[in-house]
Amino acid sequence: MLESFPNPNPERDYQIEMTSPEFTCLCPRTGQPDFAIMRIVYVPDRLCVELKSLKLYLWSYRNQGAFHEAVTNRILDDLVAAVNPRSMTVTGTFNVRGGITTVVTVHHEWADRP
Amino acid sequence: MLESFPNPNPERDYQIEMTSPEFTCLCPRTGQPDFAIMRIVYVPDRLCVELKSLKLYLWSYRNQGAFHEAVTNRILDDLVAAVNPRSMTVTGTFNVRGGITTVVTVHHEWADRP
Amino acid sequence: MLESFPNPNPERDYQIEMTSPEFTCLCPRTGQPDFAIMRIVYVPDRLCVELKSLKLYLWSYRNQGAFHEAVTNRILDDLVAAVNPRSMTVTGTFNVRGGITTVVTVHHEWADRP
Amino acid sequence: MLESFPNPNPERDYQIEMTSPEFTCLCPRTGQPDFAIMRIVYVPDRLCVELKSLKLYLWSYRNQGAFHEAVTNRILDDLVAAVNPRSMTVTGTFNVRGGITTVVTVHHEWADRP
Amino acid sequence: MLESFPNPNPERDYQIEMTSPEFTCLCPRTGQPDFAIMRIVYVPDRLCVELKSLKLYLWSYRNQGAFHEAVTNRILDDLVAAVNPRSMTVTGTFNVRGGITTVVTVHHEWADRP
Amino acid sequence: MLESFPNPNPERDYQIEMTSPEFTCLCPRTGQPDFAIMRIVYVPDRLCVELKSLKLYLWSYRNQGAFHEAVTNRILDDLVAAVNPRSMTVTGTFNVRGGITTVVTVHHEWADRP
Amino acid sequence: MLESFPNPNPERDYQIEMTSPEFTCLCPRTGQPDFAIMRIVYVPDRLCVELKSLKLYLWSYRNQGAFHEAVTNRILDDLVAAVNPRSMTVTGTFNVRGGITTVVTVHHEWADRP
Amino acid sequence: MLESFPNPNPERDYQIEMTSPEFTCLCPRTGQPDFAIMRIVYVPDRLCVELKSLKLYLWSYRNQGAFHEAVTNRILDDLVAAVNPRSMTVTGTFNVRGGITTVVTVHHEWADRP
Amino acid sequence: MLESFPNPNPERDYQIEMTSPEFTCLCPRTGQPDFAIMRIVYVPDRLCVELKSLKLYLWSYRNQGAFHEAVTNRILDDLVAAVNPRSMTVTGTFNVRGGITTVVTVHHEWADRP
Amino acid sequence: MLESFPNPNPERDYQIEMTSPEFTCLCPRTGQPDFAIMRIVYVPDRLCVELKSLKLYLWSYRNQGAFHEAVTNRILDDLVAAVNPRSMTVTGTFNVRGGITTVVTVHHEWADRP
Repeated sequence: MLESFPNPNPERDYQIEMTSPEFTCLCPRTGQPDFAIMRIVYVPDRLCVELKSLKLYLWSYRNQGAFHEAVTNRILDDLVAAVNPRSMTVTGTFNVRGGITTVVTVHHEWADRP
Repeated sequence: MLESFPNPNPERDYQIEMTSPEFTCLCPRTGQPDFAIMRIVYVPDRLCVELKSLKLYLWSYRNQGAFHEAVTNRILDDLVAAVNPRSMTVTGTFNVRGGITTVVTVHHEWADRP
Repeated sequence: MLESFPNPNPERDYQIEMTSPEFTCLCPRTGQPDFAIMRIVYVPDRLCVELKSLKLYLWSYRNQGAFHEAVTNRILDDLVAAVNPRSMTVTGTFNVRGGITTVVTVHHEWADRP
Repeated sequence: MLESFPNPNPERDYQIEMTSPEFTCLCPRTGQPDFAIMRIVYVPDRLCVELKSLKLYLWSYRNQGAFHEAVTNRILDDLVAAVNPRSMTVTGTFNVRGGITTVVTVHHEWADRP
Repeated sequence: MLESFPNPNPERDYQIEMTSPEFTCLCPRTGQPDFAIMRIVYVPDRLCVELKSLKLYLWSYRNQGAFHEAVTNRILDDLVAAVNPRSMTVTGTFNVRGGITTVVTVHHEWADRP
Repeated sequence: MLESFPNPNPERDYQIEMTSPEFTCLCPRTGQPDFAIMRIVYVPDRLCVELKSLKLYLWSYRNQGAFHEAVTNRILDDLVAAVNPRSMTVTGTFNVRGGITTVVTVHHEWADRP
Repeated sequence: MLESFPNPNPERDYQIEMTSPEFTCLCPRTGQPDFAIMRIVYVPDRLCVELKSLKLYLWSYRNQGAFHEAVTNRILDDLVAAVNPRSMTVTGTFNVRGGITTVVTVHHEWADRP
Repeated sequence: MLESFPNPNPERDYQIEMTSPEFTCLCPRTGQPDFAIMRIVYVPDRLCVELKSLKLYLWSYRNQGAFHEAVTNRILDDLVAAVNPRSMTVTGTFNVRGGITTVVTVHHEWADRP
Repeated sequence: MLESFPNPNPERDYQIEMTSPEFTCLCPRTGQPDFAIMRIVYVPDRLCVELKSLKLYLWSYRNQGAFHEAVTNRILDDLVAAVNPRSMTVTGTFNVRGGITTVVTVHHEWADRP
Repeated sequence: MLESFPNPNPERDYQIEMTSPEFTCLCPRTGQPDFAIMRIVYVPDRLCVELKSLKLYLWSYRNQGAFHEAVTNRILDDLVAAVNPRSMTVTGTFNVRGGITTVVTVHHEWADRP
């Protein structure tokens, strides 16, 4: 589902940050909706994440059950599989549940990055 | 009292932050209520902190006497005992008393973390 | 429990506002703690609310079951009984529960206020 | 679906405000998700809106198509039908679409309110 | 260019607010770009302003010369012509020029509004 | 101690607001320092409050015992005696004590103001 | 020095607000610089204030001595003389001196405004 | 188009930051306007960027199609070509599209910088 | 005057931050009051600073003359003498005088800290 | 013009920050006023900057022509000449001109600082 386009400046390390305050999924235990701000920061290699397909990809969680920790890791894995970035960080900031706010931050980096 | 669940991505170092603005205990000297924001940031190993049990654990201090410095250390010790994280920081931000705000920040890390 | 002291300027209509961000009680249905900011605004007549007794009065709800709507009304009634103000407004701003924040605002005024 | 409980102080006009930042429905034209903060302010008569049923009621729009203007009016109508308040205002603050943020504010009042 | 759709609740007076932070036109004197936040607040009668056509209408000023005072009045006139609202206010908040920020607020109301 | 200067525009009703965040006095009961923001808003008649003398006047409370309600009323009385304004409001916003913030707002107006 | 241009919509009452955070003059007593945010809000009649001439007019105070109260009144008088607005308010928010911030608000209105 | 002037202190490494909240270009796919805050931070060598020519240079994108990633890289390239700075960072913060905000950060540095 | 209590967790390096917005002393040159926010951050060794004695200690400056730089250094010296912390930073943020805000930051660390 | 006083604690490295939001000079090209926040952060050696002389020194630019980059460098040079600090940073944050805000940050350090 995630689409990409060629990085216009692959010879240069630079950073792209994409933030959606509209992530929502379902709690696998209770079936109740969860809400999060999902932030993706990456250094592209050959490919960049296409904005519209990212929007659709994030929407695809709307009626799926997903735990906070697992879903943030899964989004990172899917994006890494789609564009193989030099490095990438995904941060999910989930709305308060039971009086507690949860933020999950997951990072991936090429093994040979200096 | 603190419960855990298996870390869905133990092969990866990543960070989980859980914040409750609803911590309250009693001053051991005067018996008067104290209030704090309690923030827990950790890198899980095999186990993650279960959200609902954390909520109940923090509530268990409601009618206990506890000094700011000691209670923040104790919460770290209990959480480390429960999930043995690769690293963990607990920060208690206590409401003003006598015109002074107190913030206690306690850190634990595996001895062999690079 | 609520104490008062003589209004130093009863010949003048003026306003006193007292705000505590440390109100906590228990949900009568679940037994779980609720938290609120409690704000009291009034025009004193013969008596003013004594600060320390107000603090103790608000603390007295700590282990009582109380619905948001009922407890805000009860606090107004108790304060009116204690100091018979020319007018008074009590506002309880309760922390999010089930993703919803609740604010209850209750007003009392002498029948013959212009 | 909306449930109520008896107003604990029907002899007094007072105000209840309930705010959910987690309202989401679908755009009837494009099928894409919309997001809003839904705020309800009312003066109860005999009945108050029960918090948990309100949460479930708002969640029921999750997979329904709904225009901004129509859905805000419908929520007001449903709440008025459920608790017949002396007055009520519903405000939907919808996330930016096409670079434009939309806020819809709808009010109902008893015909004979002074 | 401005399109409309039937007001889903014409029997009720209610308010719609639409805000675009992306208004830009050209200064008729210098040819230099001006930028503004354009906010429209209205009570619809039979017709509501269609969101996408509003976006295109505001974009149509992009390469037109327009003074702050005149353009804000013109936008109000065009919107009144398109949907004949019971009342409408247009506010243009223009970016600083020569160290001075300018805000123009224009109002229209049916002659027989109470 | 309070000095004045002639109002440069007595033929016009206009408003002057002077705010000091540096008011401090002593609690008459405990001898402990209290701190407040003191704000004075008035419509001058023949005389305006001289800024430097106001600063010295407010400093004169530094080592005096003064209850929140009484001192705010006294400051209003002293300023009214010094410049006889057409109307004046004094607001003292006192720092939190015992978890409670107190704001006292006192108003004076000529008996024959329309 | 103040210039004007014809009001493009004289048949309509509407409001123009112009704010400069760069007003500076000298204290007539000490010769030291004073700084203020100067805000002008008016309903134009036949004429509007020309932006560039307003900038130059405000700059003309840079090396003049001027008391806070007098200069705010004078700016209003000069602007009223230049464009004869239906109503106008000038607000000068002066930087802290001696620990005290001063705000002067001056209003003019046609004698026969409803 | 970009002009420069001699660095007044070339013997010293120091930093200049220039920020314009008024960058706008067109989406090459849809032709619709995009908006961004463009921030340039650099250490000058022999030349500094002339402010007015930078303003005109940024305006030149107004009616050009430009993708977020490509245009931020191109601005960096053009500025590097114009003033050959010791180091430079360009950050484009683009307004929300499809519910997603995009920030692109591009950096250039002399190969022999320590 | 400063009192201490035994560090409940001396085997662990952790941080305590205590902030008072109510510090006031006198300018030695003019005798006029100065105001500051005083913030103390330290890693305790065997002893922690007792909150109430810190409050009284800070109050003891109320009627003493003290320059900004000297008093911040002195507070650090007194606290180091009282509890011999592994490291400590004192920051005094002094209110604007002559249009200038001053912040003094002083640090102490054990000679053999790694 | 800049005066100094002996550093009360020369044996210790510590930091002093002085910020004036009231810096103004003239644009050498157009003669129009520029405005900036000027912030000075330094580690004193034998001498500290005297506050009142700093105020007068900054005021001395009021009617001088000065480019942003050059004047920030010159202020650093003058302060270094006056007090020979171990290190010093001067930051000038200049108000928007032509839609662009400029911040210049200049640093000086003893050649033999570790």
